[in-house]
Amino acid sequence: MQSAVYAAVGQLVGSGQRDTMTIPEVADLAGVNPSSIYRRWGSIETLLGEVAVAALTQGEALPDTGVLDRDLDEWSRIIAADIGRPKRRAYLRAMVFARNDVVEECPCWEIRREQAEEMIRRAVGRGDSAPSVRQVLDHVIAPLYHHAVFGLALDDSYAERLVADVMSMTTSR
Amino acid sequence: MQSAVYAAVGQLVGSGQRDTMTIPEVADLAGVNPSSIYRRWGSIETLLGEVAVAALTQGEALPDTGVLDRDLDEWSRIIAADIGRPKRRAYLRAMVFARNDVVEECPCWEIRREQAEEMIRRAVGRGDSAPSVRQVLDHVIAPLYHHAVFGLALDDSYAERLVADVMSMTTSR
Repeated sequence: MQSAVYAAVGQLVGSGQRDTMTIPEVADLAGVNPSSIYRRWGSIETLLGEVAVAALTQGEALPDTGVLDRDLDEWSRIIAADIGRPKRRAYLRAMVFARNDVVEECPCWEIRREQAEEMIRRAVGRGDSAPSVRQVLDHVIAPLYHHAVFGLALDDSYAERLVADVMSMTTSR
Repeated sequence: MQSAVYAAVGQLVGSGQRDTMTIPEVADLAGVNPSSIYRRWGSIETLLGEVAVAALTQGEALPDTGVLDRDLDEWSRIIAADIGRPKRRAYLRAMVFARNDVVEECPCWEIRREQAEEMIRRAVGRGDSAPSVRQVLDHVIAPLYHHAVFGLALDDSYAERLVADVMSMTTSR
């Protein structure tokens, strides 16, 4: 059922009919019972969040170059290229639009936190200085996603500038 | 006409009927002809962007304490408190949702750029060191707006941490 539902969400986002996405509609396209979707995901918001994480991290291998700033450069360029595509921007917009008020955790944010933790853990293990995980999230991930949903330009050089900025914070910890 | 249209947009956002906001609907509520709105703003996206800027900066005086990091602290706390409110979050979400693909300029971003330029110009005039305008936008404004639309927590301490981080970049320019 999961793959049929994921495919239906992808198809609805891709079709541009973003403002009509409801659980019954997803169910209809996926050929499953709406109550199964309600039971498993609870809301369209939760479903969209989960599909976003699956889509965003699919096939992404975490860079491991032996140097933190090179890892972060590669990682941020992969993310920028991915979330900068029109379909992915549309997807993220649909996801935030489905969200109400304040959430405890955003799945997109949590997956990036785990990835940043892993790269920083490796750097610290090598005895290298590093920014904090929080700084990487606030100063690399947040601006990339901000630019994706607000429709501002996202390219390699933007990603690299953010990484250079966050790496300059290591000296002032 | 402008104030009637602005009020209609505000009312529609406030009513929670976010996914039905169209120019004819705004026109109907404002008691103006839809063609006047099309002529003046061109699209619902442009209209929402303009109302957002007007609402976001209304009555905001730019801090001028004589010290850049205090100016930035105050400024970022005002913005966090403003865009962290549920109605403002809903508004920003409706605005990004109405946006398609990549834009040349985002009005919210441009108004913050002008404000950052002014505070940094004053600091440089006093002979103080300062981060660049781009760094303030990428590392204070982008994370604040990211947290607003993605529904993550936004408070004074978050705003202050961002400012402390960006101020630490001044030494490494």
